[in-house]
Order: sequence, then structure tokens, then C-alpha cells
Amino acid sequence: MEFPVSPRALYDPIRYTMADGGKRLRPLFVLLGAGLWRDDVSAALPAAAAIEMFHNFTLLHDDIMDNAPLRRGRAAVHARWDTNVAILSGDALMIYSYRELSRTSGAMLPAVLGYFDEAAIKVCEGQQFDMDFEARDNVRPAEHIEMIELKTAALFVGAVSMGAVIGGASQEDVRHLRDFALQFGVAFQMQDDLLDSYGDARLGKTVGGDILEGKKTFLKMAAMVAAPADERAELAMIHKDLRYSPEEKIARVLALYDRYGIRAAVEEEISRRFALAASSLDALSAPRERIEEFKAFALSQLGRSK
Amino acid sequence: MEFPVSPRALYDPIRYTMADGGKRLRPLFVLLGAGLWRDDVSAALPAAAAIEMFHNFTLLHDDIMDNAPLRRGRAAVHARWDTNVAILSGDALMIYSYRELSRTSGAMLPAVLGYFDEAAIKVCEGQQFDMDFEARDNVRPAEHIEMIELKTAALFVGAVSMGAVIGGASQEDVRHLRDFALQFGVAFQMQDDLLDSYGDARLGKTVGGDILEGKKTFLKMAAMVAAPADERAELAMIHKDLRYSPEEKIARVLALYDRYGIRAAVEEEISRRFALAASSLDALSAPRERIEEFKAFALSQLGRSK
Repeated sequence: MEFPVSPRALYDPIRYTMADGGKRLRPLFVLLGAGLWRDDVSAALPAAAAIEMFHNFTLLHDDIMDNAPLRRGRAAVHARWDTNVAILSGDALMIYSYRELSRTSGAMLPAVLGYFDEAAIKVCEGQQFDMDFEARDNVRPAEHIEMIELKTAALFVGAVSMGAVIGGASQEDVRHLRDFALQFGVAFQMQDDLLDSYGDARLGKTVGGDILEGKKTFLKMAAMVAAPADERAELAMIHKDLRYSPEEKIARVLALYDRYGIRAAVEEEISRRFALAASSLDALSAPRERIEEFKAFALSQLGRSK
Repeated sequence: MEFPVSPRALYDPIRYTMADGGKRLRPLFVLLGAGLWRDDVSAALPAAAAIEMFHNFTLLHDDIMDNAPLRRGRAAVHARWDTNVAILSGDALMIYSYRELSRTSGAMLPAVLGYFDEAAIKVCEGQQFDMDFEARDNVRPAEHIEMIELKTAALFVGAVSMGAVIGGASQEDVRHLRDFALQFGVAFQMQDDLLDSYGDARLGKTVGGDILEGKKTFLKMAAMVAAPADERAELAMIHKDLRYSPEEKIARVLALYDRYGIRAAVEEEISRRFALAASSLDALSAPRERIEEFKAFALSQLGRSK
């Protein structure tokens, strides 16, 4: 991905953001989606690049809104430069994502744009619900899941939809892949929440960061349902409690999770959703070995193997 | 333009922004551009709506970055809600502008998207140069003009390019219209700068707002070139000078402008640019009476008549 040099305050943060890695999972889903039906997936490269750029744009702006100082172990753009730089370079990155997407061949462009726009709007809606929910103390688990379907899963749904269309899939196959991606996306966020509290050396994050921020994760939502009123109150407010050190806060919350088997319950929900996702893949008309490859890749992204 | 109801903090600011009027000049240029060659311009409606939405998105984010409390006489979104709401609703509005644009018929979509993306990127670059230049005290007039070509004129260029393509114009005609819009766009900003200092009842702005903000306008840039060092220093710093009331600041700057004939010089530059713009229109292959209509409309937007 080549960006201009000038103005530096616009393009340096874009290069910084795009160069910092990440798993490139969404573009892989575009390419794997197309690869279910096609050997040559080069026609899907613009859509793959576009969705990764869009994803990085959302991280850039989300970090401003969430006031998050770090991203993948490095200073977030708004912290390293400033808020204005992060707003504007994010805007430009989103526009570049559309420019990249526009390179998709003309016959497929309207359908591909349609899936991209749909996913992009849902991500914004999800981010708004996320911010709304952080300010509310009566969020139901079902609302939380709907929010994650928008904020996280929609981009996976968009990725496989674009890949499938470019691969020449039938409408029915597109529908199965979308069902897969919706379940996968929610399971992926659950896994992300688990890793934040229980650790993974691959992440450039402090373990327990979500607990210290008081973030509403799947773990916390499940514990709020399982625990009695006094523990629920502690869980809701502990991140602001001045009596405990950060280490004590994390230990107390994890102890509470243990008491109610939260980790196992979330693990089980991930498995349940992955089984649903896998059955959607099994319904595809694509060659069997490609379906199995796709499934194994998706499973590995949930930290599991067959 | 219909937007969803929920989440309200995302869509209320979009409705608020899109409902507050403005001249709708950019969509008119799309439609007039198509109308040079076509009687039925309905094929250009998605592009027209898209560019107005994109323009409003830029205002929403620019007002955050410029810390501007008012927009068209009402509270700016970031002032009425908050910065996060303004960032995210701006993002969503930009995505909706692309979604609207995607409704353009398939055969024309790639070219239309290309012009839109190009304009959108230039607007971001222009905004970054604008912010860079506000922090520098050695900006040359030529740099200032290049910045305005990006920040303001590029969207007019994009508007007429899209209109022309949808109208079925030849490449040569598209080129002439782009030449027109570049000159027009810079002249339009010059006129805007004049109105801010010399007033116009149609604007919901305080007269002299640019002077009080110390904004680098065409008037100020011209005065910096014409005035000797001591007056140049006063002009550069007067907006921060605690010895003067706002009224005194405005009066002193306008007196300085008068001394060097700045108003007349900028008026003359607008006329010169409009003459160039008009000659580009004259070179079009469209029917003569449509060219004259287009020209009269453009001229009226510069506060002039034939």
C-alpha cells in the first residue's frame, strides 16, 4: 500500500497504523471466501486491502473515542500525535479504503460496494451502542451481543460476502457464508475478551486491561447475570475503587469469575457458536477440501484446533 | 434523505447537520454539469446527494479540529453534543455519502467513484495543509492558493466531473469543466473571505470572525505581502492582543486593509479568476444557452451578476 509523503501529518499516521501488523484476518476472509470457488483470487485483492484499511481506520477513531493510549503495544495515533491528526488521518484512511475498493472490476463493483457500505455503517452503529452501553448499568446480555454483531461481526460478514461475490458464489452460498461470519465474529470477540483477562503472549496488551477499565466484556456480562446483588455491585464499580491496587482489582474480579465458572461458560459459548458457524460452512456448495481448510483456519483464529 | 432512528446519538446529529440548509451548491453543480448535455438529470441525483453529504461530513469534522462553536448560526455538532458524537456521526455520514454514490448506475459508477475519491482525498489534504499553515508564519500566497485548491475547489471539481460523466460529456469537455471548477472554487473561497470581513446578511456568522480568530484568509495573505514589517507584525498578532476590544481589532485590521486596497485587489482577483472560469465554459461543446445559464448561475454564487 503506497501513500503520498505530503502532508506528513496526514500520511505519517496512516503509514504508522498500516505498518503495525495485526493479524490481517479480515482481508484473509475476503481471499479465503473467493478461494472457495476460484483458484485465482487476485480479483479479490482490492476488496481485501480495502477492508483492512477500513478496519484500521475504525481502530484509529475508536482509540480517540475510548481515550485508549495504546494499540497493539504502541502509542495510539491520537496519543503519539494529537486528536486532530487522528481524526483527519482516520478520515483519509477511510477514503483510501473506498478508493482501493473501487479498483474491483466493474461488473462486481456494485454488489461489493453494497456489502462494504452495509458493514461500514453497522460498525459505526455498533461503536455508538458500545459507548451508549458503557454509560448504562442495565444492559442486557442480548443487547450486548447485538452490539458485538454490529461492531465486530459485521466486518467479518462484509469480508466473506465480498469474497464470495467475487468468487462467483450463488446467493444461497453467500447467505451460508454470512451466517458463518456472524457466529464466528461474535465468538471471535468472546475469545478476545477471554484473552484480555486470561492472557496470551501474542497480544501487545496488559492482561486485565478490560477489568481495570471496567469494560463491559462477555465475561463481565455473564458474571453480572450469575452473581448476587452485592457481588454485582462490586463488579460494576471495582475499577473505580480506590481501596485496591490494579493487581488486587484483577485478582478479585478473576476470583469472582472463577466462583461462577464464567471462563468455562464463555469457552462453551464460543464452541457452541463455532459449531453453528461450521455447520453453515458445511452447507456450502464449494469443494469439500476447501471448506475444511476454511474451517480449520477459522478455528485456529479462535485459539483452537480440531 | 432518510436515516435510521437508532442509535440516536449517531443519527440525530446527522439529521441535524443535513437539515440545516446551506446553499446546496455542490449538488447543484453535479446536476447542472449533467444538465449541460442531458434533459433528464435524474441519473445524477445519487452523486449530487452524495457530494452534499460528504461536504457536510467535512464541516462536522472540521468544526471539531478548528474548535469552532458555531456552524451556519447554530451550535456545531461537537458543541451541542460532544466530540465523540461528532467524530462518529461524521464517520457515518461519510459512509452514507458513499452508499448514496453507489446507487449511480453501474456503467458510470467506476468513473464517478474515481472522481469522488480523488476530491475526497484532496479535501483531507487541504484541511491538513490548512492546519499546518495556521501554525506557520511564513506561508507564501502561492501555498495558500494551493491549499484552497485542495480544501475548497477540489469538491467543486469533483462535482462537475461527476455531473459531466453522467451527462455523457467527452473527455475534453470534462477537462474544460474541471478547469472551470478549479478557478471557480478558489474565487468562491475569496468571496467567502470577503463576506466574513465585509458582511452579508445571508450568513449566520459574525462579521469579522476570521479577523478575531487570526485566520489566514486571502485578505490577510494579501495584506501581509503589501504592508511594511511593523504592520505585518501587528496583523499577524492582533487577534491575541489584549489591549484591544474585538470591535477595535476588527476596525484596525479593516483600516489596514483599506490602506493597501486589499478589498479591491481581492475583488479584482475574483473577477480575473471568473473570467478564466467563464472561458473554460465557453470552450464546452454543450448547447450555447445551457452554457450561458451555467455561467450566470456560477456568477450569481460569487455575489455578482452579468
